[in-house]
Amino acid sequence: MRIDSLADLAEAVRDFGRERDWHLYHTPKNLTAALVVEAAELLEPFQWLTPEESLTLPPAKKEAVRQEMADVLIYLISLANCLDIDLLQAAEDKLAINAAKYPVEKARGNARKSHEL
Amino acid sequence: MRIDSLADLAEAVRDFGRERDWHLYHTPKNLTAALVVEAAELLEPFQWLTPEESLTLPPAKKEAVRQEMADVLIYLISLANCLDIDLLQAAEDKLAINAAKYPVEKARGNARKSHEL
Amino acid sequence: MRIDSLADLAEAVRDFGRERDWHLYHTPKNLTAALVVEAAELLEPFQWLTPEESLTLPPAKKEAVRQEMADVLIYLISLANCLDIDLLQAAEDKLAINAAKYPVEKARGNARKSHEL
Amino acid sequence: MRIDSLADLAEAVRDFGRERDWHLYHTPKNLTAALVVEAAELLEPFQWLTPEESLTLPPAKKEAVRQEMADVLIYLISLANCLDIDLLQAAEDKLAINAAKYPVEKARGNARKSHEL
Repeated sequence: MRIDSLADLAEAVRDFGRERDWHLYHTPKNLTAALVVEAAELLEPFQWLTPEESLTLPPAKKEAVRQEMADVLIYLISLANCLDIDLLQAAEDKLAINAAKYPVEKARGNARKSHEL
Repeated sequence: MRIDSLADLAEAVRDFGRERDWHLYHTPKNLTAALVVEAAELLEPFQWLTPEESLTLPPAKKEAVRQEMADVLIYLISLANCLDIDLLQAAEDKLAINAAKYPVEKARGNARKSHEL
Repeated sequence: MRIDSLADLAEAVRDFGRERDWHLYHTPKNLTAALVVEAAELLEPFQWLTPEESLTLPPAKKEAVRQEMADVLIYLISLANCLDIDLLQAAEDKLAINAAKYPVEKARGNARKSHEL
Repeated sequence: MRIDSLADLAEAVRDFGRERDWHLYHTPKNLTAALVVEAAELLEPFQWLTPEESLTLPPAKKEAVRQEMADVLIYLISLANCLDIDLLQAAEDKLAINAAKYPVEKARGNARKSHEL
């Protein structure tokens, strides 16, 4: 199967789990735990790096990071499939919420939380 | 902007950060830390639930979960933008790796790690 | 060195890092990232288990869990050393805060957040 | 109750949960999820800071960090109580393992993983 969109990927992820009967394990709670575990595995190669070093990963480390990012996305999609959530729509809605919380004039060059602005 | 694809979303996320000069903070290390924080916020509403309860979230909790999932996706895309990684391709490649690690006959109904199969 | 108390352990952890010049890496930010990574490694063996299975770990898995718990404690102590925080006092203070937030009559058999009580 | 040792704290944590019948929720899996959530809440105030800024937290942020550290310790102790694990002994054993994995001559000023040394 050629994957050209998030919808294609969602279908491939669903088929992958179905062929293996993994729905038995794939409750929302378990999928979220797995997602957190993968996110932390993604953090692991960065934990001792300076900010600058994190921008210039050697190729082997970058490939490992790329695979961990894929794992995070795959579990996020599994969870979206399980809860019947449209991820693109959710992200579009959240960007609108964030735009209201972090107005450009106040948030520029400032990573503080909205309630501190 | 109408968001119809992961590519549209990646562009919207990039524009959002640029307008706020957040590239100053958005090193790969920091973005990964933020992603882990959001993933854990997604786990928080599930932590005391039974597997069954996690399948039938009340509407307000489900909307909170949907927004946390959006946050995870937004940071994952920010990181992909920063490292110039094609997320769809990364996920397609990882599914192929996983298919070799978890062959259908051995993995069916079994969530054990590949090395335990 | 015989470790008989949290203070002994804090000293052993400090010596361990000093002998290896790890203070160069051990900023509070990095230590916290490392702590999260270890906490997620602790979650990994539980992610697909039922609640019941998590109560009856086979011996090899329990020993792995025990070692991950030790890693979490070691990084927590490293962070406390770095920030000059008395962990026992912090926990005693937090239990007092929690006792006020979760009064016995309201919190009994109820894991909801204090603001939901 | 005056808390003078990790053993005192373990007893206080056990009593706190018992008075509230929280053993119903406190399976090892759930406690570990809660521990990860607290660890990530501890990472949150550090996520956009430079390494230097993380060393000089303003007092309010430092107190918030101190309370999150207490939460991590409380859940770690709850888990140890639940699994009947001696945390001090586990940490002492792990330091011995780490000393073999990271010999002083090789590990000095080097935060790489043992297999990369």
